[in-house]
Amino acid sequence: MTNKIFCLNDALGYVELVCTSGTDKTVVDAARVSHNNDDRSKDATDLRDRKLIQYLADHKHTSPFEHVVFTFIVKCPLFIARQWMRHRTWSYNEISGRYTEMDVEYYTPLKEHIGTQGTANKQARYLGYGEGWGGAADRIRDAYANATGAYYDLLDNEVPREVARMVLPLGLYTRFYATVDLNNLIKFVGLRDHEGAQWEIQQYARAVAKLAAKECPISVSALLGEHNYE
Amino acid sequence: MTNKIFCLNDALGYVELVCTSGTDKTVVDAARVSHNNDDRSKDATDLRDRKLIQYLADHKHTSPFEHVVFTFIVKCPLFIARQWMRHRTWSYNEISGRYTEMDVEYYTPLKEHIGTQGTANKQARYLGYGEGWGGAADRIRDAYANATGAYYDLLDNEVPREVARMVLPLGLYTRFYATVDLNNLIKFVGLRDHEGAQWEIQQYARAVAKLAAKECPISVSALLGEHNYE
Amino acid sequence: MTNKIFCLNDALGYVELVCTSGTDKTVVDAARVSHNNDDRSKDATDLRDRKLIQYLADHKHTSPFEHVVFTFIVKCPLFIARQWMRHRTWSYNEISGRYTEMDVEYYTPLKEHIGTQGTANKQARYLGYGEGWGGAADRIRDAYANATGAYYDLLDNEVPREVARMVLPLGLYTRFYATVDLNNLIKFVGLRDHEGAQWEIQQYARAVAKLAAKECPISVSALLGEHNYE
Amino acid sequence: MTNKIFCLNDALGYVELVCTSGTDKTVVDAARVSHNNDDRSKDATDLRDRKLIQYLADHKHTSPFEHVVFTFIVKCPLFIARQWMRHRTWSYNEISGRYTEMDVEYYTPLKEHIGTQGTANKQARYLGYGEGWGGAADRIRDAYANATGAYYDLLDNEVPREVARMVLPLGLYTRFYATVDLNNLIKFVGLRDHEGAQWEIQQYARAVAKLAAKECPISVSALLGEHNYE
Repeated sequence: MTNKIFCLNDALGYVELVCTSGTDKTVVDAARVSHNNDDRSKDATDLRDRKLIQYLADHKHTSPFEHVVFTFIVKCPLFIARQWMRHRTWSYNEISGRYTEMDVEYYTPLKEHIGTQGTANKQARYLGYGEGWGGAADRIRDAYANATGAYYDLLDNEVPREVARMVLPLGLYTRFYATVDLNNLIKFVGLRDHEGAQWEIQQYARAVAKLAAKECPISVSALLGEHNYE
Repeated sequence: MTNKIFCLNDALGYVELVCTSGTDKTVVDAARVSHNNDDRSKDATDLRDRKLIQYLADHKHTSPFEHVVFTFIVKCPLFIARQWMRHRTWSYNEISGRYTEMDVEYYTPLKEHIGTQGTANKQARYLGYGEGWGGAADRIRDAYANATGAYYDLLDNEVPREVARMVLPLGLYTRFYATVDLNNLIKFVGLRDHEGAQWEIQQYARAVAKLAAKECPISVSALLGEHNYE
Repeated sequence: MTNKIFCLNDALGYVELVCTSGTDKTVVDAARVSHNNDDRSKDATDLRDRKLIQYLADHKHTSPFEHVVFTFIVKCPLFIARQWMRHRTWSYNEISGRYTEMDVEYYTPLKEHIGTQGTANKQARYLGYGEGWGGAADRIRDAYANATGAYYDLLDNEVPREVARMVLPLGLYTRFYATVDLNNLIKFVGLRDHEGAQWEIQQYARAVAKLAAKECPISVSALLGEHNYE
Repeated sequence: MTNKIFCLNDALGYVELVCTSGTDKTVVDAARVSHNNDDRSKDATDLRDRKLIQYLADHKHTSPFEHVVFTFIVKCPLFIARQWMRHRTWSYNEISGRYTEMDVEYYTPLKEHIGTQGTANKQARYLGYGEGWGGAADRIRDAYANATGAYYDLLDNEVPREVARMVLPLGLYTRFYATVDLNNLIKFVGLRDHEGAQWEIQQYARAVAKLAAKECPISVSALLGEHNYE
């Protein structure tokens, strides 16, 4: 499906574009209201429009980009959802471990994505630098299996779901609706498709950027010019 | 045009719906993610969906309504724009009196909408209560004409637009793009289509509600049940 | 310490008030600017001020309460932090499992707070209704111990902290700075010190309300009248 | 009074700092929670703290600055208030022309601040470039006087205040409470103490920066290094 991009190695995590409002043309129409122009009779963008979008991006006139809006469904591990939801301009609706039993699906990184702890830079994770611990993935999966066992023991004994989930690990997959405007989408991508961000959320940020670029190629290119999200 | 509603007496002020994302079905889809359901294969809403929307509205579970988004163009007097833009969850792009010469179009209320100043309730404006001053509309128009004269004198003498506009009155029409999600649209309507609000913004709030009700009739009815915006 | 309230049964979780700006008097001063009054020469609130605050609360004129601001330090389990941070008007800074090794401190509910899963109401947790599973707390602690073992095994083998933490459970304690204005603090308390909220976050919401009530007793009482947070 | 800065030429417009929460030390305390440190026993900032604040500023880690909050009273012309209130992260309470009769105080720029309209750059106002129209200030004052006359005629005839104010010009002074955190204060200053902004709001932005710099000199200097706001 063209509106859905799988992000990690396990065919579980994805970003799917559900609906959208506005286009590159909406951005220029909104910007031109400043000059009391109304060009809506014209359907497509032309060279002058593309120059205007580049001008808006270069001069950080970001407000016209807020009239373009995207709604996604995201499936990702809890530790990524926690990073994502720190972005407070998005709207969210997430699966609730209070209302429903969680699917016990977990994320385990591939060996080449586990890497080793940086020492100089305290937050760095060196990928493909040396070998890393061969037993890491198995140790993670073993811990997940133990958590699953505890979760089901608790549920089988009528412990409330909201209590039982306390044993579930941050590698568990969750799923949520997420709506954001193009200006704030770009801020998210700029912070999260960045070498300082955790490798896994970089994959999600890139998927978000690619899906947005399909809808608003001129704006995304103007705002995130150094990258290529086509 | 069906997506444009004129709001005042002068065929100048209006609200126009430009684009929109999501429907009543998006609200229920987003709400059901809490229970890990995905009903998107079904296109239309059914009785169960309508009950869910009513439940969400009754229990103030407002987050699913944030995945529905509307973009409007609004033309209104400055004193209304000032009230509107206190709503900080909307995105705005407005005509700029710095970048362009303003059209000198003004709002003058009809005699029956001018009313008289309340005394017990300090903010009240009594409409149709007694006669009101017969000369009011003319006095207002006269003041507007004087301001227009000053504005043009200043522009004709190369005074910068951003300085010249200081003489323009709050009755001047402005125009802006405005984007908002359904949850915050409803909060706006609740506060502004309210007897405590100024009569003129009540007309705009009602237009906003009617345009939203065309797109999401079930949600708007559930959230604003006491009114009828069809 | 009077500005710190322990919230759960384990002497670990707490809410601490770090600093604050504004008082009940600030609320009335901000409200009176609407009428072009400036009463700041008077230090304390009087009966007229208290009536004004009650009027503001009763008529949902909430903006004057936004000029009072609180900064807290919160230590709570991850599943509570996740609920808390859905409140997007707060500012947060949290301990990072990427930058530092997490303290392996976990929350285990007392037997009388575990309860049993509701059946009619899908999200309910019945406390003190029947006995609940006697083995629950031990099973939870056992799961936590297993997660701790895995976490240290991974760290000992130089697996990056941001990978190793994937095995840590939602019962793990985290700690964060949290700043909010009084209006949005009250909205938080209204939603979270509520029978529909999880029992544990109710305890935190009550602590937040009590600490705010010490600083602004009149406002908190006016806004949350049905409760007593003294 | 040291917490009040007059901004324009007329001893009317000002920014006054009313109350504040947090200091430079709060910024570093909040930042250090990421590393699970708690340095609050130390009162003052030291060299290590200053380096941390510079690091946060350089790497756009802006969230720790949100735990410092300022409340101002601002008196400014309406056209500035309209620019200011487009900043949606501030909290506002403004004098209401519905509730009370407005003081008829207006802003008239000095001759050397009126300037001439730019032609190449459509929004530019050239100050001290050529002479400008000698009659401008008188023409503006004359327009203000006419508006005042109309306003009082309407009020004298019991036209409601909210209607009568429609004749009042954008040069009228208004007054409002405004609360903001340090991160968003800095964004405001960056956009408004900028050559692309209107000359008058630049004066206000500078006053805001100076008042903030008194409270948090290290943070303001780190975030706005190119300027000197001492």
